[in-house]
Amino acid sequence: MSRSLQVRLFEKPVPLTELPTPCLLLEESRLERNAARLAVHWDGSSACLRPHLKTCRCWEVARRILASPAGPCTVATMGEAEAVTSLGGRDIVLAVSIRPALFARAQALMEQGADLKVLLDSRTMAQALADYAREQGCTFSVLLEIDCDGHRAGLAAADPELVCVADLLRAAGQIVAGVLTHAGSAYDCPDTASIQALADQEQEAALQAAELLRARGHACPIVSVGSTPTALLGTPRPGISEVRAGVYLFMDLVMEGLGVCSLEDLALSVLTSVIGGFPEQGRLPRRLLTDAGWAALSSDRGLERRFASQGFGLVCTMEGHLLPGLKVAELNQEHGMLSVPAHPDEDVRDALMHLRADSKLRILPNHACATSMMHQSIYLVRDNAAVALLPRFGGW
Amino acid sequence: MSRSLQVRLFEKPVPLTELPTPCLLLEESRLERNAARLAVHWDGSSACLRPHLKTCRCWEVARRILASPAGPCTVATMGEAEAVTSLGGRDIVLAVSIRPALFARAQALMEQGADLKVLLDSRTMAQALADYAREQGCTFSVLLEIDCDGHRAGLAAADPELVCVADLLRAAGQIVAGVLTHAGSAYDCPDTASIQALADQEQEAALQAAELLRARGHACPIVSVGSTPTALLGTPRPGISEVRAGVYLFMDLVMEGLGVCSLEDLALSVLTSVIGGFPEQGRLPRRLLTDAGWAALSSDRGLERRFASQGFGLVCTMEGHLLPGLKVAELNQEHGMLSVPAHPDEDVRDALMHLRADSKLRILPNHACATSMMHQSIYLVRDNAAVALLPRFGGW
Repeated sequence: MSRSLQVRLFEKPVPLTELPTPCLLLEESRLERNAARLAVHWDGSSACLRPHLKTCRCWEVARRILASPAGPCTVATMGEAEAVTSLGGRDIVLAVSIRPALFARAQALMEQGADLKVLLDSRTMAQALADYAREQGCTFSVLLEIDCDGHRAGLAAADPELVCVADLLRAAGQIVAGVLTHAGSAYDCPDTASIQALADQEQEAALQAAELLRARGHACPIVSVGSTPTALLGTPRPGISEVRAGVYLFMDLVMEGLGVCSLEDLALSVLTSVIGGFPEQGRLPRRLLTDAGWAALSSDRGLERRFASQGFGLVCTMEGHLLPGLKVAELNQEHGMLSVPAHPDEDVRDALMHLRADSKLRILPNHACATSMMHQSIYLVRDNAAVALLPRFGGW
Repeated sequence: MSRSLQVRLFEKPVPLTELPTPCLLLEESRLERNAARLAVHWDGSSACLRPHLKTCRCWEVARRILASPAGPCTVATMGEAEAVTSLGGRDIVLAVSIRPALFARAQALMEQGADLKVLLDSRTMAQALADYAREQGCTFSVLLEIDCDGHRAGLAAADPELVCVADLLRAAGQIVAGVLTHAGSAYDCPDTASIQALADQEQEAALQAAELLRARGHACPIVSVGSTPTALLGTPRPGISEVRAGVYLFMDLVMEGLGVCSLEDLALSVLTSVIGGFPEQGRLPRRLLTDAGWAALSSDRGLERRFASQGFGLVCTMEGHLLPGLKVAELNQEHGMLSVPAHPDEDVRDALMHLRADSKLRILPNHACATSMMHQSIYLVRDNAAVALLPRFGGW
């Protein structure tokens, strides 16, 4: 995959009406506010921030939030790790289980100067890594994945297997850099109190696992936790060395639905053009057709069982003001179908009656990671105009 | 967006075990069978095939199915039209409503030699096009969109507005090339008999609209219908000049669920590596973790209300044999979670017990268009080995 990684700064701000649609907009002021919120929340704790770049996949965004150009940061694929390394990142956690076919690429990154930490949670994988390292004469830094909530992967904090895996790695001359856990089930929490409790459970699991390893003589410097909900709502505990989060920068309707943020925090939206269903002869349209289909929004339904009323996204004016009652009701590949309430508020009615061919709207996405994945670049927006086009990196 | 459009033919076939995962596989023999099926179905009718390239977005695939390198073909975005033109395509229908911001790009394509047909369904858009054409001194070929099933867009076949729009275009010196309709509601049909009835309704609407226009002196040479279900199951009627379909080439679980094809027709799959949940100590895994998350599969649920049991996809061995009872139960960005039945068939159990780190599986996607959208290239597979890497084009 060849993508331009050059940022395009516009000589003068470009009005949103002049942007090609559909495209991704990122509100700079909200991005900065969201970034500051997490930093302030963990300020004074034992933990540093290790932002997860899988959401933004954008170095220009990363540059604004990382402690230094070298990191620390988190990525989800080896392709992302390679992109970040080529851009100057050094302190990188690849937070998806490593596998044998990727060992050589990890080694190559280390040889380029990256301090890459790889993740694993089984003796099988640890043995394979140790075998490879012995053969190649190289040393990996390894994080052991801890399962804090039965969500996806990892060993239980008290699983004796954890010590076996760590011992195996040490005996093979590999570095046991620490433990990592992710409270992925935060997305199933019914309220913010449950998220707070889960955050505590997440930190407890990581601390307990680290203690177990330290009792066996593993230094275990890294004690890593995180997910946007738990990172923002949990109470930092001493001993946690770092916190990971990704979507906190952009926010989305899922986060709003979980009570983690408000609609005014959503920094990411999709700019779309109206292509059909214009108001005619003073009649309010029943539905509007736009050029943002699932190819631009993704098919992600968010937490649909809980918040079905938001459909595939909520609808704002071009300037970003919510149009209450409208939603993206249906998506085809290159068509978005917006449903219009029969009796909208007066100002919504007024906004709708002014729509013409090529009029612009903004869609607030259910899931910022999924929506941004459909785009290769992001328009940075300041005062309702685009000031730069930021390339996204990616791939596997 | 800069993408390589170079096909990479491998000197010798590459075993699937050596491919980087996740990646897209296309079974050449099934592709050819699927292509032949539509061609045979319409053979002897008045219609030519105008394949929709939005599914494959791949010139190497298009080349195999188009009547000639020049077309006819269908695309869904101006970016696709531009890619196809640059690759030698000429007879192109852009099957999503045109809008003023795209007029100049359409004009540029015509100046490059493309015989581009644009689509519209309102006086508003026709007037805007006519104004632009007069100003620029250019001539557009226009298809009028007909609504045959209340699905999305278009004018009803008997709507007097249709003639008004056509007259407006003619008066402005524009070419009324014909009518186009799409039975998008085929996806809601409960059975194949309903799809057949809908296909008839689709053709009837197009024929009726064409007749209305001809009665007003518009030649209306193009009478275009299509959707994969109606194109494959409908009975061709005289007077239809062309049929459009896209997903018929790849097929997917939605098409299988609708009764349009069988599982053995699915030509597209995602190759994935097992990264966790291996069988241990003779115990069958409860679930498997793979590296194909929604970033590789899309979040498309298919016809989930009807076929929820298939989750986000069905699971096959690397060789493509279905593993009954397994499905992609959950997706994170870069993780696929496969559920394993408690009591699988003996051969399924056997296949599962042989899984190791990096073992490969194939996932059959719900929606081929959405899954392939997540990938920039496709491995062409012959006899369980990759013979070429085919680039995909795209963008807006």
